Amino acid sequence: MLPLPKKYFLTAASCEGETELTAFDRALLEAGVGNTNLLRVSSILPPGCEYEPGLIIPPGSLLPIAYGTITSCEPGARIAAAVAVGIKKDSFGVIMEYEGYCSKAEAEEMVVKMCREAFRVRGLELDEIKIAATEHLVEKIGCAFAAVPLWY
Amino acid sequence: MLPLPKKYFLTAASCEGETELTAFDRALLEAGVGNTNLLRVSSILPPGCEYEPGLIIPPGSLLPIAYGTITSCEPGARIAAAVAVGIKKDSFGVIMEYEGYCSKAEAEEMVVKMCREAFRVRGLELDEIKIAATEHLVEKIGCAFAAVPLWY
Amino acid sequence: MLPLPKKYFLTAASCEGETELTAFDRALLEAGVGNTNLLRVSSILPPGCEYEPGLIIPPGSLLPIAYGTITSCEPGARIAAAVAVGIKKDSFGVIMEYEGYCSKAEAEEMVVKMCREAFRVRGLELDEIKIAATEHLVEKIGCAFAAVPLWY
Repeated sequence: MLPLPKKYFLTAASCEGETELTAFDRALLEAGVGNTNLLRVSSILPPGCEYEPGLIIPPGSLLPIAYGTITSCEPGARIAAAVAVGIKKDSFGVIMEYEGYCSKAEAEEMVVKMCREAFRVRGLELDEIKIAATEHLVEKIGCAFAAVPLWY
Repeated sequence: MLPLPKKYFLTAASCEGETELTAFDRALLEAGVGNTNLLRVSSILPPGCEYEPGLIIPPGSLLPIAYGTITSCEPGARIAAAVAVGIKKDSFGVIMEYEGYCSKAEAEEMVVKMCREAFRVRGLELDEIKIAATEHLVEKIGCAFAAVPLWY
Repeated sequence: MLPLPKKYFLTAASCEGETELTAFDRALLEAGVGNTNLLRVSSILPPGCEYEPGLIIPPGSLLPIAYGTITSCEPGARIAAAVAVGIKKDSFGVIMEYEGYCSKAEAEEMVVKMCREAFRVRGLELDEIKIAATEHLVEKIGCAFAAVPLWY
């Protein structure tokens, strides 16, 4: 089977670019995962996976990652992305992502709400929620990106 | 290289949620894959991969999976998702996914039709088709999800 | 961790199909990756990853791949997809993808432009760009697909 990730962190960043894809690329760079190969997952914190902020991912790595992202070409638009990790001791956790034309606070509120619902339907008690979020006022072409990279 | 999956099953389920993402999350839970990290693939049954219904996937696993899914916020809308696995003895197989505003029967018809086309263009004879499908009448926010998890 | 890809190639192809998904499936077959499980990545050429055109991928493999693709049901529409790999000796590289209602030349121009921006923001000098692109005039349902498969 594919190896179970053992470490994670949260990150969020926004950036402008000359195109939608390079705005995304630059937001990834700001978020510290721009030189890796994102492998998008949906989205459970493996049991025993430990929080390690500041983790450096080697360039080119296949990086399992849960993320929310939005790119916009509407100058003046406010965009935001957020992630939340719902944590329960001695259990797996749940990761929720959100992105939209909204403020950082609204995106944060959404991921927290979704995390609570995810725990409630699983009959799990929530010990802690970690969140990361970003908002951006689009100048020309902008991207907001929030993520939970899972690593080894 | 990444390890070749050795087992598979089919699953389908629908659910309501308070948001689009949690409706999706709850459909995954009903489908038996809600506590895993879905790694979406497109979409071949590896040669020698064996059918094993009722397989339990450990929480947090990186799970290669082919799926069709649709989420809707239109109360009263009928949504459906289906998957088909086209099987040929001593060969790889083909997985087809469909989702839309339609009935379960229509989604099933589509995935069967696509499976036949995929086999025809490969010059392969089709020994058997397995299908799984679900339909859902949206109350507030609903999700239909059909999948072929690939495992070890 | 997941194993780092060691080889890559570029490929591009277009095809018609009876449905959107089978048009995509047939374009993948023409591109030489139709019998594999695409695992979409975003999108760095790992350091030391070597160019190996004509590489054969075993059926069913989980294949890390960066790609751009577009499917259209508008008869007469021109669609195109392109990928570019920006290469720098003794470093990782960057892969850019584009797809749209445009010509092959326009798609190529876009991926080259994005590659240059990606190198510029990283402060890296660009030694070489490899590109692959395809365009297609839709008859009924068509797909254009351009990709950089990463392999072992």
